[in-house]
Amino acid sequence: MSLLANTPKPPYYAVIFTSVRTFDEQGYGDAANRMIELAQQQPGFLGVESAREELGITVSYWQSLDAIKQWKANIEHLAVQKKGRKLWYESFKVRISKVERDYGL
Amino acid sequence: MSLLANTPKPPYYAVIFTSVRTFDEQGYGDAANRMIELAQQQPGFLGVESAREELGITVSYWQSLDAIKQWKANIEHLAVQKKGRKLWYESFKVRISKVERDYGL
Repeated sequence: MSLLANTPKPPYYAVIFTSVRTFDEQGYGDAANRMIELAQQQPGFLGVESAREELGITVSYWQSLDAIKQWKANIEHLAVQKKGRKLWYESFKVRISKVERDYGL
Repeated sequence: MSLLANTPKPPYYAVIFTSVRTFDEQGYGDAANRMIELAQQQPGFLGVESAREELGITVSYWQSLDAIKQWKANIEHLAVQKKGRKLWYESFKVRISKVERDYGL
């Protein structure tokens, strides 16, 4: 698997999730891996890219706003979102954006 | 400075730059720091977030497509883009997107 998401020709959508973690590691790694696995099974999922240093950035790509809405409302994902707010994240920001153009090397 | 970019109420624009580096380190760190410094002086710049593991992700935020176009055409930035293509990046992707909605913790 390439590290760069192999997304189709725009337009499509990007969810930019940036976060600062707490020191609570319990359950975090497993939940993060499981969420990637689960997202990949969602309708309209196009790819994901992730990196973490002091700040973590995960960008997931989607066919439509509706696909993003369905992913946000996934039961297992909802439970993990709740834990994230309570335990794992000091702060985070979710930005929903429409990719209009892309190019690369 | 907070690690999460303190962006205004949407809409605004995000440039999602994801990359895989080569092993060529020469000049890279200085150029990367200088580009952040230079971007911050550009008209329409709103903030930047960055993390690198095997994959690097830098998201910069802008008031308008025109501000992004001006940044891309900045003389000093153009020289660094050329070096990036030739020396520092194995592969990269630039995605220009319009942030329509955001929320956070």
